[in-house]
Amino acid sequence: MPDDNKHHVVIVGGGFGGLYAAKELGKRKEIKVTLIDKRNFHLFQPLLYQVATGGLSPGDIASPLRAILKKNKNTNVLRGKVVDIDPDNKQVIMFNGERIHFDSLIIATGVIYNYYGNEKWLGESPPLKTMEDSLGIRHRIFHAFEEAEREKNIEKKNEWKRFIIIGGGPTGVELAGALAELAHFTLKNNFRNFDPTKTEIILVEATDRILPSYPEKLSKSAENSLIGLGVTIRKNCFVNEINKDNVIIENKGQTESISAQTVLWAAGVKATKIGKVLKDRFNVENDKVGRVYVNEDMTINKRNDVYVLGDLAIYTHFDGKPLPGVAPVAMQQGKYIARKIYNDILNKNTGPFIYKEKGSLAVIGRNKAVAHLGPLQFSGFFAWLIWIFIHIRYLIEYDNKIMVMLQWGWYYFTMKRGARLITGDDPFPYVDKDYYNQTKDN
Amino acid sequence: MPDDNKHHVVIVGGGFGGLYAAKELGKRKEIKVTLIDKRNFHLFQPLLYQVATGGLSPGDIASPLRAILKKNKNTNVLRGKVVDIDPDNKQVIMFNGERIHFDSLIIATGVIYNYYGNEKWLGESPPLKTMEDSLGIRHRIFHAFEEAEREKNIEKKNEWKRFIIIGGGPTGVELAGALAELAHFTLKNNFRNFDPTKTEIILVEATDRILPSYPEKLSKSAENSLIGLGVTIRKNCFVNEINKDNVIIENKGQTESISAQTVLWAAGVKATKIGKVLKDRFNVENDKVGRVYVNEDMTINKRNDVYVLGDLAIYTHFDGKPLPGVAPVAMQQGKYIARKIYNDILNKNTGPFIYKEKGSLAVIGRNKAVAHLGPLQFSGFFAWLIWIFIHIRYLIEYDNKIMVMLQWGWYYFTMKRGARLITGDDPFPYVDKDYYNQTKDN
Repeated sequence: MPDDNKHHVVIVGGGFGGLYAAKELGKRKEIKVTLIDKRNFHLFQPLLYQVATGGLSPGDIASPLRAILKKNKNTNVLRGKVVDIDPDNKQVIMFNGERIHFDSLIIATGVIYNYYGNEKWLGESPPLKTMEDSLGIRHRIFHAFEEAEREKNIEKKNEWKRFIIIGGGPTGVELAGALAELAHFTLKNNFRNFDPTKTEIILVEATDRILPSYPEKLSKSAENSLIGLGVTIRKNCFVNEINKDNVIIENKGQTESISAQTVLWAAGVKATKIGKVLKDRFNVENDKVGRVYVNEDMTINKRNDVYVLGDLAIYTHFDGKPLPGVAPVAMQQGKYIARKIYNDILNKNTGPFIYKEKGSLAVIGRNKAVAHLGPLQFSGFFAWLIWIFIHIRYLIEYDNKIMVMLQWGWYYFTMKRGARLITGDDPFPYVDKDYYNQTKDN
Repeated sequence: MPDDNKHHVVIVGGGFGGLYAAKELGKRKEIKVTLIDKRNFHLFQPLLYQVATGGLSPGDIASPLRAILKKNKNTNVLRGKVVDIDPDNKQVIMFNGERIHFDSLIIATGVIYNYYGNEKWLGESPPLKTMEDSLGIRHRIFHAFEEAEREKNIEKKNEWKRFIIIGGGPTGVELAGALAELAHFTLKNNFRNFDPTKTEIILVEATDRILPSYPEKLSKSAENSLIGLGVTIRKNCFVNEINKDNVIIENKGQTESISAQTVLWAAGVKATKIGKVLKDRFNVENDKVGRVYVNEDMTINKRNDVYVLGDLAIYTHFDGKPLPGVAPVAMQQGKYIARKIYNDILNKNTGPFIYKEKGSLAVIGRNKAVAHLGPLQFSGFFAWLIWIFIHIRYLIEYDNKIMVMLQWGWYYFTMKRGARLITGDDPFPYVDKDYYNQTKDN
């Protein structure tokens, strides 16, 4: 049991930021740590799209938080949810009313999907942020192919063969690339009543290029790679409506309806609810998606004991640009805050947080990627190799590193995707409740 | 598309029996085949307990049926459910009313769990027959450890640390062994507020020995292995009642209540509903759990075009003993029926089905097993090695063989179990709906 006289750091959220803070604080015997998360595992979010497309299993991209931190004897992992903060008594308040006192608090709860006011689209166009999301999307994708095989009406059949992905950022681009490979290579010869290589994948992007946060040259080469894989890219298109059987998009005032049975949402994020709690309790400013502005040492407002990091934080760097919501930023901030807390105890100065740019990477299919690393911009096979190695390097546990590497090696040479299972308590959740009721009992 | 003039074999069920029949029939150009299953994958049921205890991922023990059969150009895989059979018109009737004509019909739908009239126990004591079951049990197991960590009331804490497994057949024995290893080795040092090596695992068996279908000597050595792993075995105990917090067992007229939060059901099976359909439509006899008596060529009643195999069939061998419901029986019957159908077309005689005894194996923990192979009965490390090789050999796809072998190798040397995730749309489904409602939105 952690000693009660020690400086107590409470970390809320076991994503990249929270976990890297916890790992760093685990070295400090003078400190005790409580890491709170709703889930019992750390999720390697950048590979969620691989689970969604049947390339990896959930266990490959997730590690139990307790297992990762089991050697940190000063650290307690608590499964639960923080719903409020008491600034005066320095306590977080749990879902069940329990209060936990902190000396320092690190909020690292990140972001969730954003439908920008159209939350009703959630049912027709699911997001890809959690493990359950990825299994839900996997279910939808493979269910669509099954229905394309079964359906005799040619128009309906085509709707099952058509996939629309909303949002041309990294998630949308990687999902489109993986889906195109799945359909055009992996599933070849799997069906008798339609040709999966004729699957249509449409990527809808609101701006004039995909990967808008990347340099233009890389957007162009990502676009070419996707087109090479048979993906249709619709730029400058806003989504007006998503219905059960179609999507209405608008391009320069012209509306158009595209019919499809499978629509996937990769268009945006907003802060978790704790962003609002921070605003109410600490009088900090939220941006329009609820993220929190932080000071140059990652604290908020005038508090030197409350930190916010990662996707939930808006940190404006010395060059005047806010840092992007990517894993390397959260990791570095987590480590920085851990160091800062320790230095404060020793009355040592830490200085402001400075981000070491790690570059941007996005993968498109089996052996193409785009990379923007410092002054370098490149694409193709070499970018893909770098992508592979960086992703494997940052998988938390050694088990996962080995297994994912082997599965990718195997997949690379065979084009197979082993995890193409339609599972769930309800084997047919999205289309036909009657079917399910007729089939569930045996 | 299969040619419509060819002899059409309809197979219902993609388990071991149905799949081995389909694989064999795939070689015959004179025949076309339709394999119908509710699921899009073949499940390697003998390893379900490994998924339930976090040792393997779902993708490791399941393979898409379409992928397995993609080279069989004469074979159509259809996802769907057969609800009735029309004997006169030689048609199976699908859930949606669709009728599919057959020249030969193979029913291979197997069995489901059996609560022997106490179906209300399903909620408190889940079974282990499907992929969803195994993920549900995994969720319960890891949730119980989380609650043991959180709970402050010492009696409640002990209830979360106590697991009761009902049924000492192979499933119950393997589950108890894996759970004991998980608790006593893998989870060591993962918790701060209780000691997982103090987890209690109680295996309840109604007869006077576990593995009652095995030779007595092997029952004894399985018992010793389980006791060595810290499992408590309660023999000659019937279950009278299963409640939310306890189980009432009866031993020689004496009742006893054992309190526990996690109770798992491994006590029996009954026929899938199609057993009743066969009785009604073909006037065959069902046994008391609804299985179907078959002729010596695996046909039923006077029909030479309708076959039943595997767990659903009761086949009394020449030695007067009914064959057990195990994978090798179903596989051999599937192949036999495929051969028989082909021989019938050629007007060649096939003779009765004769089972080549493959023996029985059950594994207890990391390096102990019991084996009964022909005249040989042995246990310990060598039995375990045989168990490993046989199980890997019969995994359907080469991908799975490699991955499972690697995971087991890794697990053997590190004692790790990578897939210890609590997932599901509802992260806390079994205990606290309010908790969930407070936490689900972000």
